[in-house]
Amino acid sequence: MNKKDTILIIGAGLCGSLLALRLAQRGYKVEVYESRPDLRTVDISAGRSINLALSDRGLKALRLCGMEEKARKICIPMYGRLMHDTAGNTFSSNYSGRENEYINSISRGNLNAILLDEAEKHENVNIHFNKKCNYVDIENGIAHFEDYKTKEAFSIDAAVIFGGDGAGSSLRKSYMDERKFLFSYSQDFLNHGYKELEIPADKDGKHQISNAHLHIWPRGDFMLIALPNMDGSFTVTLFLSYDEGEFNFDNLTSEEKITEFFEKEFPDALALIPNIKEEFINNPTGPLGTVKCSPWSYQGKTLLIGDSSHAIVPFYGQGMNASFEDVFVFDEILSQDLGDWEAVFKAYQKARKHDTDAIAALAIDNYHEMRAHVANPLFKEKRKIEMDLEKTFPTEYSSKYSLVTFNEQIGYDEAMKRGRAQDKALLNMIADDTIYTHLEMTKEELKVILDKVIIETKTILEEDKIAGL
Amino acid sequence: MNKKDTILIIGAGLCGSLLALRLAQRGYKVEVYESRPDLRTVDISAGRSINLALSDRGLKALRLCGMEEKARKICIPMYGRLMHDTAGNTFSSNYSGRENEYINSISRGNLNAILLDEAEKHENVNIHFNKKCNYVDIENGIAHFEDYKTKEAFSIDAAVIFGGDGAGSSLRKSYMDERKFLFSYSQDFLNHGYKELEIPADKDGKHQISNAHLHIWPRGDFMLIALPNMDGSFTVTLFLSYDEGEFNFDNLTSEEKITEFFEKEFPDALALIPNIKEEFINNPTGPLGTVKCSPWSYQGKTLLIGDSSHAIVPFYGQGMNASFEDVFVFDEILSQDLGDWEAVFKAYQKARKHDTDAIAALAIDNYHEMRAHVANPLFKEKRKIEMDLEKTFPTEYSSKYSLVTFNEQIGYDEAMKRGRAQDKALLNMIADDTIYTHLEMTKEELKVILDKVIIETKTILEEDKIAGL
Repeated sequence: MNKKDTILIIGAGLCGSLLALRLAQRGYKVEVYESRPDLRTVDISAGRSINLALSDRGLKALRLCGMEEKARKICIPMYGRLMHDTAGNTFSSNYSGRENEYINSISRGNLNAILLDEAEKHENVNIHFNKKCNYVDIENGIAHFEDYKTKEAFSIDAAVIFGGDGAGSSLRKSYMDERKFLFSYSQDFLNHGYKELEIPADKDGKHQISNAHLHIWPRGDFMLIALPNMDGSFTVTLFLSYDEGEFNFDNLTSEEKITEFFEKEFPDALALIPNIKEEFINNPTGPLGTVKCSPWSYQGKTLLIGDSSHAIVPFYGQGMNASFEDVFVFDEILSQDLGDWEAVFKAYQKARKHDTDAIAALAIDNYHEMRAHVANPLFKEKRKIEMDLEKTFPTEYSSKYSLVTFNEQIGYDEAMKRGRAQDKALLNMIADDTIYTHLEMTKEELKVILDKVIIETKTILEEDKIAGL
Repeated sequence: MNKKDTILIIGAGLCGSLLALRLAQRGYKVEVYESRPDLRTVDISAGRSINLALSDRGLKALRLCGMEEKARKICIPMYGRLMHDTAGNTFSSNYSGRENEYINSISRGNLNAILLDEAEKHENVNIHFNKKCNYVDIENGIAHFEDYKTKEAFSIDAAVIFGGDGAGSSLRKSYMDERKFLFSYSQDFLNHGYKELEIPADKDGKHQISNAHLHIWPRGDFMLIALPNMDGSFTVTLFLSYDEGEFNFDNLTSEEKITEFFEKEFPDALALIPNIKEEFINNPTGPLGTVKCSPWSYQGKTLLIGDSSHAIVPFYGQGMNASFEDVFVFDEILSQDLGDWEAVFKAYQKARKHDTDAIAALAIDNYHEMRAHVANPLFKEKRKIEMDLEKTFPTEYSSKYSLVTFNEQIGYDEAMKRGRAQDKALLNMIADDTIYTHLEMTKEELKVILDKVIIETKTILEEDKIAGL
């Protein structure tokens, strides 16, 4: 772990640039190679996840690197979901009963840009764009690249190579292809894909619908969502099956059918998307996949970090937050002075893998929840009780959503286990009429529910433990 | 689905040969290509899963093809587990409280041979050996082979191609490589590998230990098992971590250390394995992996079946049974006269996938159970109650093991859900002292327990359903 050795980071996306910044702050010599052009000089968004949800886990990592304030300046707080039904009625559901808990809509490009700017301020960091990694010779620590412009091939020899190169990671592919060790790997696609559309700003550059919410049009088998941008526009994303149901990506091929679909299902959104037909036809349909793998490292030579090691579906708004938290956890392990990279990489995976597996599962949970449950009466009643509990007993109750999103001091795995048990307790108590709820609950009534939930959650966790689950 | 069209089956292993036989019986023209030599003429076992456990699901498929009686002639019934502790004490645990429920040790080679013999009796079947499939052009239905002896490359054009080519399937690899569709795929390795050893027959050709049991030496982090062969020998398998614990495959490299390990952990087994050192050093260490994927078919052109679509770890003794049951389920779908192969393939996966996912999960459950739980007092008490319940109420109670192994009329998924809920109910009732158990339970005492288990199991399943689990 000699600080004169060269550390190579493949990928200057969100995770790669934050990692570069942190390692530079620790005094390491860092070379970053990115396949795409510099997004600060070229627009490369191309209709794919233009904005993201930044929340407490991501902010924790940005804070570590001194970037929290700069990031907050480009954030738009979203305090809850605003659901739209087919008649155009809306109802809101806050993310938390506590006032200081909200998520933030942020532009992927702008956030990446401030991280690159900050990393480049360090003279021990060099960032190279338009250099695509084709494969990594993991045994010898050599990464093979191609220059996008000159088409020239070249290679970089490094003491340590980090793969921060996202869901399609070339380092991860090299693990698969080289077969130097037993590599557990999974890629799991949902039957749904996604497509991005746009609600432009009004003529005064203002948002046409509430910019304090994440908008959802839940329709059971499919849904539309919208997140606000700082320029007054919204990025709208349609999640839809490729080939199932009356309307799907495979059969929405004519302008008539696209219009018919939106008129029937999303009339209020349609009225706000002037270029619907062009955008629908021209914007790509992206797949929704979960990637897991193990081990993340090869000896002390290479490490996968961020999406390259755990790509998840976007339904919990945690993809970027999980990748940033990777950098935070990795930094904690570095502070333990374990002596060599192999020990650091192993300790890092041991500390982190169960949590990234958990957020992958949670994101799939929310895929079902957002499309269907949010409009389900049992679920709505549960959410109302949870908001009341969080408001009335802010230090004693946190919903699963709060545990995952706003409780960055516990890991995703613990948040999932506690959160799922709590949900199970609450849903069953509502279904059994074990608890009585009405619109204006008193503190005393809520205290009765709180005590029951706590006891029942504990019982569920204990029974699962005894059953070895 | 013209019966004059050529159906190509890649692989003449257990699943490929049973499928060939069944399709031949239905009048299809079948060409089978197998990479290895004909196992009826050459010994190709090479220290890898020489014997297997055949049980009711496998027998159901063999019965369909008229092969049950022939198979039973080469079976050795095993009525339960015989556990060995480090002091050489043994205790037995039956697989079922019902007398007619047992599993069978059978030689993979001998079973494969009788299936090949039977398939070849049909003039509409041709089996070709030493022809290795390298890849399949799935769009055009062309499989590319290499002749192992002449090294010549050739290709086969077929109306339909079945990949019965096992865990390392070339058809499945072609799905991954061709990227014609979104292919969900996972390969998951345990930290444990396995190695086969042998307890030879005594000088009279007889078994040296009980041949009516599957022997287990459970040691928590590792274990040894032994299944009887018809020649009086036992095939012994060591399951051990590659790199964790005091003893592991990576550090058991000297004769001294191997002997030290067996003397300390398996002294009674060691006394029966005369060639321990040679076998340990010369026999390969195999990995233990689970493979899942989806979709199994490409249009109406290709289908993965058996291990190629769902390889599992061996701890439930269900690998072969699951593959044979694939043929049974596929045959049921064929009987529905759906009109074209695409509809057949889709209906088959829809009927089957949730069950093969379940047996994969169950096999992992048993990996933990066999190593550790079998020696755990809570688990032993549960097994005793279950045996008593099955004996006393044979039509009213079936343990998870019985549901999975002996109840071939229900799918693995239902067996898993009911079985896990039942286990959870029983384990928690024992832990809570909700039920009282002693050595000689009366029918009345057992009836009380039965009623409680049934109610509690139902509650668990309902609560999981409400929680959306």
